[in-house]
Amino acid sequence: MEQLKVVKIGGNVIDQEEVLKDFLQDFASLEGNKILVHGGGKLATKLSADLGIQAQMIDGRRITDEATLKIVTMVYAGWINKNIVAKLQYLGAKGVGFSGADANLILSKKRVAGEVDFGYVGDPVKVNTSFLKAVIEERTTPVIAPITHDGQGNLLNTNADTIASVIAVAMSEYFKVQLIYCFEKPGVLRDPENDDSVIPHIYSSELEHLKSEKIISGGMLPKIDNCFNAIQNGVQEVLICKADNLKYLNHKEKFVGTVLTS
Amino acid sequence: MEQLKVVKIGGNVIDQEEVLKDFLQDFASLEGNKILVHGGGKLATKLSADLGIQAQMIDGRRITDEATLKIVTMVYAGWINKNIVAKLQYLGAKGVGFSGADANLILSKKRVAGEVDFGYVGDPVKVNTSFLKAVIEERTTPVIAPITHDGQGNLLNTNADTIASVIAVAMSEYFKVQLIYCFEKPGVLRDPENDDSVIPHIYSSELEHLKSEKIISGGMLPKIDNCFNAIQNGVQEVLICKADNLKYLNHKEKFVGTVLTS
Repeated sequence: MEQLKVVKIGGNVIDQEEVLKDFLQDFASLEGNKILVHGGGKLATKLSADLGIQAQMIDGRRITDEATLKIVTMVYAGWINKNIVAKLQYLGAKGVGFSGADANLILSKKRVAGEVDFGYVGDPVKVNTSFLKAVIEERTTPVIAPITHDGQGNLLNTNADTIASVIAVAMSEYFKVQLIYCFEKPGVLRDPENDDSVIPHIYSSELEHLKSEKIISGGMLPKIDNCFNAIQNGVQEVLICKADNLKYLNHKEKFVGTVLTS
Repeated sequence: MEQLKVVKIGGNVIDQEEVLKDFLQDFASLEGNKILVHGGGKLATKLSADLGIQAQMIDGRRITDEATLKIVTMVYAGWINKNIVAKLQYLGAKGVGFSGADANLILSKKRVAGEVDFGYVGDPVKVNTSFLKAVIEERTTPVIAPITHDGQGNLLNTNADTIASVIAVAMSEYFKVQLIYCFEKPGVLRDPENDDSVIPHIYSSELEHLKSEKIISGGMLPKIDNCFNAIQNGVQEVLICKADNLKYLNHKEKFVGTVLTS
């Protein structure tokens, strides 16, 4: 089985032109098969504000009404996605951009309104792995925006971390998949105030202990649970690191970050 | 050689929700290999106006400054492209959306500033036919937005009629290509005031005569020249018709429009 790297970047990389440029250079130089999943960043919020549309957030999640769906589709699948792809062409990485609607890549289910109605938000239910495999076999690099569709003609806003995870799991049918989350922090920290306290490796057997010791807590809890969930479902390993440590993946002895394995 | 239909629609279809819906239904039901090229429409102009950016036009062509490039990329490659693709999924046509930057699909040259500086506008120089062929062979339908790139990491605004034409010409290496322009008018009219005066067929040998008789004149002249240019470069035939006549392409005896051949 060949290797496949699924790399996810968020707003902290996308919003800073120079950081994004350096990241894309590092990403382009990664050896082997790879997929880039990107989030949104501040541009959508800024565009909403400029248009006088109030961005509604609950628990850090955007409420996606019709106007907001249009904006995030334009910004994520339009400007950010095509800008990244054009820069990857220049860097020789043969990028090809997709939303989840393209080629039925990620079919989602609109989230049912409970206490909170998140609006046009979807949770992935199916990945078109054979199309993605064919694209990778053409030696092109999929660049995926966090917009999916419901199969009924509607687009849906979807969490980029989740997209990276479901793609990594689905593609583990064909590849040995390494899932890499580029975060603000250099990895999972033993002391959240100390960036030098990166835990280099977490085995699934240690998870409960780290939770009970409150070393993994707060916002990290669901993230780490999702990572181990991906590992349980076929992903070989999950890496959590800063974007500027990605370049060391070709020379793993220099890599700083947290590796999660079963 | 298999057949391939390259269909181009413009703002007159895109801007009207019901017209677009009917068109996509007809397009989805077209038999055989097909590619859809779409233009922009009024949404980009409206978004510019809402953001207080004055859209500059010279001779019906948009001047693309940096802010406008961002807007057209968002609107064309983002909202319009993904909206069409999601609807085609629902209709069973397996759409997959691309800009010219994706997979280096259309490499352009930034137009050199002469008397008029059109800004970030590009003229196509090369089509990645092998990628497009691979996508078609996956039984998916490329949906192409009129945004290309310069190979140096920059996106460029590009005329959608031109994109349809260069793709039709380039793909005639592999397919018998029919290029179909969906216009406001039902075809080339003998009398521009009379929609019933459609010229059903124009052979290249008749072109000079029709020009000298001023039957083809004004804005139609460059369009028809471009069509015959495509035919000279390998396209089998060019059809000019209304979007709602597209459905008759499977039953050509009912088709109303102008057919151009060598």
